[in-house]
Amino acid sequence: MERPLIGVLGGGQLGRMLAIAGVPMGVSFRFLDPAPDATAGALGARYTGAFDDDDLVDRFASGVTVVTYEWEGVPAPTARRAARSAAVKPGDRALEVSQDRLVEKTTLRSLGVDTAEFRAVDERVDLDAAVEALGLPVVLKTRTGGYDGKGQAVLRAATDVDAAWTRLSGVPLILEAFVPFTRELSVVGVRDAQGGFRAYPVVENRHEDGILRVSRAPAPGADDATQARAEACIRPLLDALDYVGVACVELFETEGGLLANEWAPRVHNSGHWTIEGAVTSQFENHVRAVLGWPLGDIAPIGVSAMVNCIGAMPDASRVLAIDGAHLHDYGKTPRPGRKVGHVTVTAGDASTLDDRLGRVHAAVAAA
Amino acid sequence: MERPLIGVLGGGQLGRMLAIAGVPMGVSFRFLDPAPDATAGALGARYTGAFDDDDLVDRFASGVTVVTYEWEGVPAPTARRAARSAAVKPGDRALEVSQDRLVEKTTLRSLGVDTAEFRAVDERVDLDAAVEALGLPVVLKTRTGGYDGKGQAVLRAATDVDAAWTRLSGVPLILEAFVPFTRELSVVGVRDAQGGFRAYPVVENRHEDGILRVSRAPAPGADDATQARAEACIRPLLDALDYVGVACVELFETEGGLLANEWAPRVHNSGHWTIEGAVTSQFENHVRAVLGWPLGDIAPIGVSAMVNCIGAMPDASRVLAIDGAHLHDYGKTPRPGRKVGHVTVTAGDASTLDDRLGRVHAAVAAA
Repeated sequence: MERPLIGVLGGGQLGRMLAIAGVPMGVSFRFLDPAPDATAGALGARYTGAFDDDDLVDRFASGVTVVTYEWEGVPAPTARRAARSAAVKPGDRALEVSQDRLVEKTTLRSLGVDTAEFRAVDERVDLDAAVEALGLPVVLKTRTGGYDGKGQAVLRAATDVDAAWTRLSGVPLILEAFVPFTRELSVVGVRDAQGGFRAYPVVENRHEDGILRVSRAPAPGADDATQARAEACIRPLLDALDYVGVACVELFETEGGLLANEWAPRVHNSGHWTIEGAVTSQFENHVRAVLGWPLGDIAPIGVSAMVNCIGAMPDASRVLAIDGAHLHDYGKTPRPGRKVGHVTVTAGDASTLDDRLGRVHAAVAAA
Repeated sequence: MERPLIGVLGGGQLGRMLAIAGVPMGVSFRFLDPAPDATAGALGARYTGAFDDDDLVDRFASGVTVVTYEWEGVPAPTARRAARSAAVKPGDRALEVSQDRLVEKTTLRSLGVDTAEFRAVDERVDLDAAVEALGLPVVLKTRTGGYDGKGQAVLRAATDVDAAWTRLSGVPLILEAFVPFTRELSVVGVRDAQGGFRAYPVVENRHEDGILRVSRAPAPGADDATQARAEACIRPLLDALDYVGVACVELFETEGGLLANEWAPRVHNSGHWTIEGAVTSQFENHVRAVLGWPLGDIAPIGVSAMVNCIGAMPDASRVLAIDGAHLHDYGKTPRPGRKVGHVTVTAGDASTLDDRLGRVHAAVAAA
């Protein structure tokens, strides 16, 4: 009996949690990451170096059952290089579509998925025309490279345009209409190689300073119609890309319905609650999908909330004294603004969850 | 912030599953085991060598937060040696009480826990007297070293006595009355350093050839009174030993009530279902207890069953196609009679569980 070996491009906490899900099933892991202390290395062999080091990629991808990635910033050429040695799931095309906001939104629109209005901005004249067309407020973003709120500027008045242009120009940009959303949601789905698809219940997310702080699952008040609309924002994309694995689409809930904001071709922070809060976690389902194994049950167990630990870990004893609380410490060196862990709390009903969540917030805030 | 490091005496699948539970909480592990390929080594540093290698034990125990063990066969002197360098939880006394069936049963009796009638057997004359006193059938066992049904003989007729004596004599023995039990149960409990105690729901076990095959949790039909009686078979022992960590007592359910059969001072095969079937697993609770962290909620999630994979792993795809099934492959080399993994299956109700369990049995039997 041959046990599977998965090569993961990227060795951060997402890779680490993929391994934590896969190792119990007898799956081994290796990780390619530029950082010698990449946290996933605690659970598999480290291949330390640059993503454009072809020799390293060749060695990394040689002999594995399948290559996958845990970061959408992995260069598409790296995925293509790895594909010389092993199947890469999801493929390089998913990286390309996620790395460029213009391609991402254009692709979503072409598949009938609603997004905010947008315009490509390459020259200053494009920006003026786009502001004119979309009206204020708008959001100017770099097409590539931005994450967690970096690389973007909100333009609320005509006087903001010059400053935003000065700050962001020099790279291809996209101007997006500002969406007056009532709340942020996300949907995490998984697709297998035969086209089978399952989506976890829609989650409600709260961001601060562009970083996800809290997710609640299932999203309070999200009905079957909301779930169906959310799934319609992700499944066409996965089908179009013949995508294999877990992906996430972040959504704006507005008076007029759901708009897709952005997607991630990987397991997602807003799906961490599934480790304890669903029958099969997003991590296990990604492992299953890329290995060609059957997808697991995505049903939620009770209600859950996840709180990110930013910059520092809370006191373990204080967190674990809360019934239903589960502590996840990524083993990273604490730094301001860095995601170093998360706490998931589960309960049988919403009011118990609220009570426990309040205690989790207090513990995390005291860190 | 200092992250904990746990040293585990023994590096088998129980140590591996302790690490799988602890690593997500930021806990690191090291394992001392005679086998260079001890399976837990995939999740921490291996210290390979004999348990009586004092230098190795010293190096192993140096710098760890706490030492624990995953095998009751660890020599008590090894635990005492490690205790020179670090706290050892549970302590060496728990090993001694579990390693000698006579001490075990005598201790249980002294604490008011019912067991089968028994007699110490050192000489042939003791055996004859004991058979006379207890009547047939009886079970002759070695006082130390037996597990999974090895080192014992059932005496059903007077003619069996000679053969049993020939096979087992030469080491201290114990003769136990044969218990006409209706079924085998077990109770897994956890005790913290302050004397706090929690017990998982009583489990129903089915053994074949002395090896655990299937556990069902909670045990069908076990009411609150049964649970209370089961807890009364384990808590006095843990209190008497000032025990810190998870332990298990195997029980016989008889017409006259519960009898304690044997106990294990460690996480236990009949508690594997808690990984997916309880809010906090036995492994996480053991880690929490030995680190001085608060104990986690032991409430079950729905109903669960666990099937051991003996000698070979089943086909992963076949198992994972069963809703609610979770595959655990210990990463061991398959050998006849060797526990190489288990499958836990969960469901919301007993009849769904029965259906799924039937499919798990078929998959495991086909391996």
